[in-house]
Amino acid sequence: MRKILVIGSGKSTSYLIKYLLDKSIEEDLHVIVGDIKIYNAKKLIGDHKNAQAIMLDVFDKTSRLNAIKNADIVVSMLPARFHIDVAKDCIACNKNMVTASYISEDMQNLDKIAREKGLVFMNEIGVDPGIDHMSAMQVIDRIREKGGKMILFESFTGGLVAPESDNNLWNYKFTWNPRNVVLAGQGGAAKFLQEDTYKYIPYSRLFRRTEFLDIEGYGRFEAYANRDSLNYQSAYGLDYVKTLYRGTMRRVGFGRAWNIFVQLGMTEDSYTIDDSENMSYRDFVNAFLPYSPTDSVELKLRHALKIDQDDIVWDKLLELNLFSSKKMVELKKASPAQILQKILQDSWTLEENDKDMIVMYHKFGYELNGKNHQIDSTMVVKGDDQTYTAMAKTVGLPVAIATLAILNKKITTPGVQIPITKEVYEPILKELEDYGIVFTEKEVSYLGYNPLNL
Amino acid sequence: MRKILVIGSGKSTSYLIKYLLDKSIEEDLHVIVGDIKIYNAKKLIGDHKNAQAIMLDVFDKTSRLNAIKNADIVVSMLPARFHIDVAKDCIACNKNMVTASYISEDMQNLDKIAREKGLVFMNEIGVDPGIDHMSAMQVIDRIREKGGKMILFESFTGGLVAPESDNNLWNYKFTWNPRNVVLAGQGGAAKFLQEDTYKYIPYSRLFRRTEFLDIEGYGRFEAYANRDSLNYQSAYGLDYVKTLYRGTMRRVGFGRAWNIFVQLGMTEDSYTIDDSENMSYRDFVNAFLPYSPTDSVELKLRHALKIDQDDIVWDKLLELNLFSSKKMVELKKASPAQILQKILQDSWTLEENDKDMIVMYHKFGYELNGKNHQIDSTMVVKGDDQTYTAMAKTVGLPVAIATLAILNKKITTPGVQIPITKEVYEPILKELEDYGIVFTEKEVSYLGYNPLNL
Repeated sequence: MRKILVIGSGKSTSYLIKYLLDKSIEEDLHVIVGDIKIYNAKKLIGDHKNAQAIMLDVFDKTSRLNAIKNADIVVSMLPARFHIDVAKDCIACNKNMVTASYISEDMQNLDKIAREKGLVFMNEIGVDPGIDHMSAMQVIDRIREKGGKMILFESFTGGLVAPESDNNLWNYKFTWNPRNVVLAGQGGAAKFLQEDTYKYIPYSRLFRRTEFLDIEGYGRFEAYANRDSLNYQSAYGLDYVKTLYRGTMRRVGFGRAWNIFVQLGMTEDSYTIDDSENMSYRDFVNAFLPYSPTDSVELKLRHALKIDQDDIVWDKLLELNLFSSKKMVELKKASPAQILQKILQDSWTLEENDKDMIVMYHKFGYELNGKNHQIDSTMVVKGDDQTYTAMAKTVGLPVAIATLAILNKKITTPGVQIPITKEVYEPILKELEDYGIVFTEKEVSYLGYNPLNL
Repeated sequence: MRKILVIGSGKSTSYLIKYLLDKSIEEDLHVIVGDIKIYNAKKLIGDHKNAQAIMLDVFDKTSRLNAIKNADIVVSMLPARFHIDVAKDCIACNKNMVTASYISEDMQNLDKIAREKGLVFMNEIGVDPGIDHMSAMQVIDRIREKGGKMILFESFTGGLVAPESDNNLWNYKFTWNPRNVVLAGQGGAAKFLQEDTYKYIPYSRLFRRTEFLDIEGYGRFEAYANRDSLNYQSAYGLDYVKTLYRGTMRRVGFGRAWNIFVQLGMTEDSYTIDDSENMSYRDFVNAFLPYSPTDSVELKLRHALKIDQDDIVWDKLLELNLFSSKKMVELKKASPAQILQKILQDSWTLEENDKDMIVMYHKFGYELNGKNHQIDSTMVVKGDDQTYTAMAKTVGLPVAIATLAILNKKITTPGVQIPITKEVYEPILKELEDYGIVFTEKEVSYLGYNPLNL
């Protein structure tokens, strides 16, 4: 039997392990799931005969190395910063490796030796990064093959709540790491290309410079710019495009309301508030507003940010109990961002029967035979429940499919890599369709950034 | 003759050196001015017989140590980060030392050995920090001596252009390091105390949360909060005050206009713009606004920040030639802040006959015999010309007076210190009055943060 070691059994591993176990008889697989919390691993494998849960402390070099030595391929689903130790062991033991995380500098530095040893180190093969790379490159390569020249690429992804579970005014719940949501967009400006011009959006304007996107059957979304729009420009072969933009999708209206937190300073994580433990939510809001012996916190906030009383953003704030003098922060020496996260988690945590949803939207603009064209490609995936989430499906399935493909020598090009070659994306995207991960393409008029066609 | 070594002969040393030379006969002083740009030093000392200019490269340990060994006391007017090397040499050679800069951690670490050796290391004895410390502590000590209990302390300083040279719409010119002006307020929130409540203002709101201050004969000013309002709380003995606020003064309207740069992202220094060299000022502005095939940069900016065409802030932007497509940035790979600085320097550089002005405003609230009282204390100093500026006067004179007082053993308490003891501030403030550096005090009603007295 071929042994697959999966390190980590967190939120995003349910589908990954299910896929491998479902294939384990016909493919002759033995799946070993290692986690320091072994009960997590045990819960996911149940009593499957081709599976085994082991206690694995990734900081214990000996047990880590032994587990890796014993495997034919290694999947690391640990937090990104822990991959590098696993990767070095894989180099030492001559094992192929798969992760869903961004390639770190340390990981990139292993490229030469991985190539020399003929090892495949596949990274960024989750949903974003992952499915976005593959689905984008499939269309870009197709356009090029028929002689087209790319002039515009825009790509948007969102982790959201499914419409049937969408029952708050923000049309949002946490379906992934809440801390990343609170800190999103901080640190330097968002940089992108629009019609051959570099554009920069500072954090304080980010959530007011959104774009609208419509997906048939799902209505309208908005997107704010990612900081890294130009990161894959060369990797995708888009050095000469005029427009390059990557963004994060939310339901329309989220950004305008979120901007209130940004403007007040509630998303800051660079300092802590001394007496946060004993603050009410109301005290927390008041800390960002001028002192007044008479005016209410509500009126001070409305005045500071010029919010009319009948503005829907005001109801969004009320829904979060932001002005409650009874609800307590209870966090010691917390940063504003940590406190805001706690307040949001009261309201935005998925309930037992809630489903999540992943949406992706690509725009491909190209020139062919002197004419401009555009293809819009969209994907919507909904979760089944709180274990088999859309996030777990879209992250875990590409990882699982790639792992088996590498084991079966269908993916053989060695080195530290991301899934942007046909060898990789073609079979994986094909198989993802069987699981309902499907892109819908539409030819639309190319408007570039001239939507009124003036 | 007693030898005083002044290291550095930059902008703020004119009055310092003049004071020492004027006293050199009666006090038997020989003033040695060391600078790597020896012509600067030579210019300032002229042909005074009690003075000598030497070429001094502060990075050359041997010549630095020799110069210090040869002196009776050392004044470092170098940029703050270079003081520590001089300070270590002063420890090694048993010399007293004076600087106008904030005490760094490295400097503070020398406190123990300085005390052991009986050396006076006087710091923060310029204008801000310096005159603010001394003038505040004089009033605070006086209030305490008559049995009062401090409940409020607010302190504001501004380096501005004198009214007679104030001829632009911003009522501002650079009278000190322009880079510090462009970056002012960045990095974490401004934190202060208002009526027993900690308040936090993020950078994106800083210039919209100003306070007004009136100085008789000079009209109205505004102030934005410093980041460090609570820094001297314990040093001043103000641990139990209800209100503690430090701010920077500008003419009214500056903040609202400056906030446009902040909101657009033009004050950011954390990244560089690739093609900045070939950008016009107009291109620079456009980089922070959405692309449009039709709308002008002007209209896009007005719309983004909701500026009416008859709003005075618009004229302030026009005055800076911000929309010029002819004026070029010409800086290679510059950050937005560097580019903005260049644009502002075109308009805000002092002309040959321009005079600068330093304004300071303290508010002292206290309780005495069950009643609340308040004293407001203000200072205005104008420069004579571009060499003998108000900045050079208010920075250099306290340094010079302290240096001579230490040399004459009138200030003897050893250690790394700031001028907050009576031994130090009393004689220095007294002598500063002879040079027109005078505080005007006024008893006003204590209103705290209840200005409408509701």
